[in-house]
Amino acid sequence: MSRPAAPLPLLKNVATRLRILSIRSTTEAGSGHPSTCMSAAEIMAALFFGEMRYEVANPRHEHADRLVMSKGHAAPILYAAWAEAGLFPREQVMDLRKITSDLEGHPTPRLPFVDVATGSLGQGLGAAVGSALNARRIGSDYRTYALLGDGESAEGAVWEAAAAGAYFGLDNLCGITDVNRLGQSRQTQLGHDLEQLAVRWRAFGWHTLVVDGHDLAALQAAFAEARATSGRPTMILARTFKGRGVSFVEDKDGWHGRPLKPGQETDAAIAELERQLVDDGGATFGIPAPSAPSTAGAATPRPDVPAPAYTRGDLVATREAFGTGLTRLGALDARVVALDADVKNSTFSDRFEKAFPERFYQFFIAEQVMVGAAMGLAARGAIPFPSTFACFLSRAADFIRMAGISGVGIKLAGSHAGVSIGEDGPSQMALEDLAMMRAVPGCAVLYPCDAVSAEHLVVEAAYHPGPAYIRTSRPKTPVIYANEEAFPIGGSKTLRTSDRDVATVLGVGVTVFEALKAADLLAQEGIAIRVIDAYSVQPIDVAALERAARETKAILTVEDHYVTGGLGDAVAEALGPRGVRLVRLGVREVPRSGPPDVLIDRFGISAARIVAAVKQL
Amino acid sequence: MSRPAAPLPLLKNVATRLRILSIRSTTEAGSGHPSTCMSAAEIMAALFFGEMRYEVANPRHEHADRLVMSKGHAAPILYAAWAEAGLFPREQVMDLRKITSDLEGHPTPRLPFVDVATGSLGQGLGAAVGSALNARRIGSDYRTYALLGDGESAEGAVWEAAAAGAYFGLDNLCGITDVNRLGQSRQTQLGHDLEQLAVRWRAFGWHTLVVDGHDLAALQAAFAEARATSGRPTMILARTFKGRGVSFVEDKDGWHGRPLKPGQETDAAIAELERQLVDDGGATFGIPAPSAPSTAGAATPRPDVPAPAYTRGDLVATREAFGTGLTRLGALDARVVALDADVKNSTFSDRFEKAFPERFYQFFIAEQVMVGAAMGLAARGAIPFPSTFACFLSRAADFIRMAGISGVGIKLAGSHAGVSIGEDGPSQMALEDLAMMRAVPGCAVLYPCDAVSAEHLVVEAAYHPGPAYIRTSRPKTPVIYANEEAFPIGGSKTLRTSDRDVATVLGVGVTVFEALKAADLLAQEGIAIRVIDAYSVQPIDVAALERAARETKAILTVEDHYVTGGLGDAVAEALGPRGVRLVRLGVREVPRSGPPDVLIDRFGISAARIVAAVKQL
Repeated sequence: MSRPAAPLPLLKNVATRLRILSIRSTTEAGSGHPSTCMSAAEIMAALFFGEMRYEVANPRHEHADRLVMSKGHAAPILYAAWAEAGLFPREQVMDLRKITSDLEGHPTPRLPFVDVATGSLGQGLGAAVGSALNARRIGSDYRTYALLGDGESAEGAVWEAAAAGAYFGLDNLCGITDVNRLGQSRQTQLGHDLEQLAVRWRAFGWHTLVVDGHDLAALQAAFAEARATSGRPTMILARTFKGRGVSFVEDKDGWHGRPLKPGQETDAAIAELERQLVDDGGATFGIPAPSAPSTAGAATPRPDVPAPAYTRGDLVATREAFGTGLTRLGALDARVVALDADVKNSTFSDRFEKAFPERFYQFFIAEQVMVGAAMGLAARGAIPFPSTFACFLSRAADFIRMAGISGVGIKLAGSHAGVSIGEDGPSQMALEDLAMMRAVPGCAVLYPCDAVSAEHLVVEAAYHPGPAYIRTSRPKTPVIYANEEAFPIGGSKTLRTSDRDVATVLGVGVTVFEALKAADLLAQEGIAIRVIDAYSVQPIDVAALERAARETKAILTVEDHYVTGGLGDAVAEALGPRGVRLVRLGVREVPRSGPPDVLIDRFGISAARIVAAVKQL
Repeated sequence: MSRPAAPLPLLKNVATRLRILSIRSTTEAGSGHPSTCMSAAEIMAALFFGEMRYEVANPRHEHADRLVMSKGHAAPILYAAWAEAGLFPREQVMDLRKITSDLEGHPTPRLPFVDVATGSLGQGLGAAVGSALNARRIGSDYRTYALLGDGESAEGAVWEAAAAGAYFGLDNLCGITDVNRLGQSRQTQLGHDLEQLAVRWRAFGWHTLVVDGHDLAALQAAFAEARATSGRPTMILARTFKGRGVSFVEDKDGWHGRPLKPGQETDAAIAELERQLVDDGGATFGIPAPSAPSTAGAATPRPDVPAPAYTRGDLVATREAFGTGLTRLGALDARVVALDADVKNSTFSDRFEKAFPERFYQFFIAEQVMVGAAMGLAARGAIPFPSTFACFLSRAADFIRMAGISGVGIKLAGSHAGVSIGEDGPSQMALEDLAMMRAVPGCAVLYPCDAVSAEHLVVEAAYHPGPAYIRTSRPKTPVIYANEEAFPIGGSKTLRTSDRDVATVLGVGVTVFEALKAADLLAQEGIAIRVIDAYSVQPIDVAALERAARETKAILTVEDHYVTGGLGDAVAEALGPRGVRLVRLGVREVPRSGPPDVLIDRFGISAARIVAAVKQL
């Protein structure tokens, strides 16, 4: 694993040039975080031009070393580094933050060298854990680096990732914390007490080094030591100064998120930096290539998944069918992996673990890193299914938000949705997850009512481009679909229909059965209703909704979810401009413990409530 | 602080009785977590009957010691302890999990001895930090205890709380981790390696003790040592066995969340436990009283807050007015406190800090504990305003969910909402926060467009019973309201109206001004529209909406938020049954960096877009 050490004068000049370009681009943009870039200049120079193996022309190379820029506000220096490496001309960095440029204020995967969007602090290390797990999955020796700030080390998510990195023994993972002492508004909690920070990383099982982050030789030695460390990840704590290199900025308060003023201020800074350029003898760097050629283009096709084998009327919880379907899919596509947060025996992901233990990752009770690692895995070619109780996915809401911005294909599965879980009470009931997931652009939000649809939707989710969410239920429900039925994303199933339907009732999950019961009860009184299983909550089946709007007088939505943001909202958004009568049945207050059937009625989503609502129309 | 040690035989019998009642009640309920209760029996006995000072008849006593049951699934033993203390008859615990009982599956503040709902693991210590800060705020010597599980210690939120507890030097805070080795689905990451866990707590600055959690004398000594420790909190790591006391359950896999079977299995367990009862000589315990009498009933009235002093046309960002308004309110009500996550100079909460440093709490970049501590503070009588960028409140989404279940009055403020922040890019833009906050039942969701309304809404939020959310914007906007104007929750302001309005446009925040511009543009073409500032997104002004629905042909909503779950959803929900034409303008894709005005137009919420939409009707 040894590689030729880059000459120090060259690296020193690279660091200076990165500083200059970070200042110039943020001054030009009129916003941004130059001082945060300046503390990291030697780290970036040592990483990019003395440590990492990559192919400049193909930043997504599947065996190339990765850098996750967890301190995403230092984006300008990341862009400057890629320009320095030759991916694009240096002048292009001057388009920073312009609407016409992909060099955004914080990095996003619109850029080929960004795996996951960063800028919500504390998230990068989780994605790096996923990237490192992926290297193991594909048998690659690529290494993953993550550059953190000291400020963001206050985020609990960092310590979840720390625990996970140690648990998995990820010696292909190396974190660097740019300990520049200053947060946005004040000194960080630990300031320059790097030993205190080192004690924490060691306590979490990492090989931990404290170095002068402006000493290129020390950084090179630290990276070499990290490479030589086996069985655990390494954290390099780099003592740095914010604004390093410009005397009136360095280690001063008040320079977070503030560009230098154009003209004299910027000119003085650049002049001071230019004086720091040394004679490097015209040395050039050679960037080591990845150790294996890229096989990109050899895309794995979507496998032909045989239909499940249920019998109509079988009582099977959708959460169980999820586990079965995921395991069946795993046998056909080696990219499929499962991630758990110590509830595998409730979500049935333990079936996948039994079949494919090497593709099953246990994160214990730490949902943020579970989702963060899934982001890293997805960005590197896996098809990850992180699953837990749906309510606990809200723990990772900010990660899910960033997964949406990243457009990465994480396939979330949340079980135990709604009041139908019963006696465990409101803390265990997901009643806001549909609202959370629908607010992710492009996310497929899927909610099967029976085992057949659940198994099909696992497959649909897997091959949906971008994020997807499958919501499953705790109670057993009868199989109502034929095994061969198709459940395309954006579709729906009309379960009852006639030319006398007075209203259309859309159910999802457990409320499909309440709607069917209501239809039977109303039929006894000569009232016909249309019943639709809206299993694809997002995108919703607009054509079926429009037909229903034309053919029936009103539409009712019934969902085991708060009335806000879920199915009712999806239908209202689709049909709003038509002026259709829309009635929502959903949970309207904090529920409580009790038997599922009692709760379903008490909180307004039972067959009896549907019957009453239809009659009221 | 010394107190009489309770006789050990008595405590031992209490522990046994707590085990018996935990088993009996979960067997009766047919669900629940008896084995998790059994590991904690000695801890609970030593805490409740040898350590804590409280008044059984008044569990909410403001000077009584607190216990936050972070491992909320051990609820039955908490209920059993209060029954043992005499708050209600033991037989009442047999109503566990029934719809008719407040003894829910996981604790909620429906019970007078529960400050915050638990059951989403890893949250309790954050609330305990808030409770301990509150003791300092009111000058009380009450102590706060938090009982954690070892499994939940994988949650990053626990380590955020650990860092905060040490930072604030909370020696009135004592955590106990019931290290019973077994999670739900398997052994925890560290198992019974308590030293490894101790290293972590020490690294985070806590006085840390490792004890045998079934040794009552050791527990008593540990509690005494915690009481004697000054300047930092104490964590007692208690080595225990899940299912302790019943040979066929103790330390065995497969007993998480599983009650014993009625009949033989339960009978055998209880018989085995009853054999563990010892002769306690008929001893009784005396529970020490809080050190100061309760002053409950002396409710602080809502102060008369003088109107702000802006001039119409002044350009003031609502985030700045939030800071000003909060500071003015803080001068009139000592219960008001502010919590920050290192963005005080962007949210303007630094104004409050300058005025009231002792009521300003810095949590650094750790949003979960910021919100968690706010929950604890609110539950103990403070009026806490945690604030950060609105997008980063999603980091605490699960805490906000639990705050809703708890009904505690946290007053969240989120700045930098929407694409109007401009160049920083999507990671910094809150576009799903309205969806998140509207999914909290009873939460007031407030979104001012100018400085006057922002200041008034700070006051309204403060005295709203339960949670509230104020969404503020980055750009400066003109003051349009008179200083004396009232902004009641549930209200709206009609800014343009005529008897010829063809449509009603509802704006909020920055889009109010786009709507006004659109009205001007349309007026030039002889088209009149009604413009409403829907500053109270939840509850929304249904009367104004219904009037608009009667008097105009269609309603448009315009919001700097994704189209899902926000203002459009609120209006659709309110008017759905009427069959009104509703058109939503909102962000429909992941946005990008760029100038605010360009983004507002590009992502569909500008005056020009409103004009086009109105014409299309």
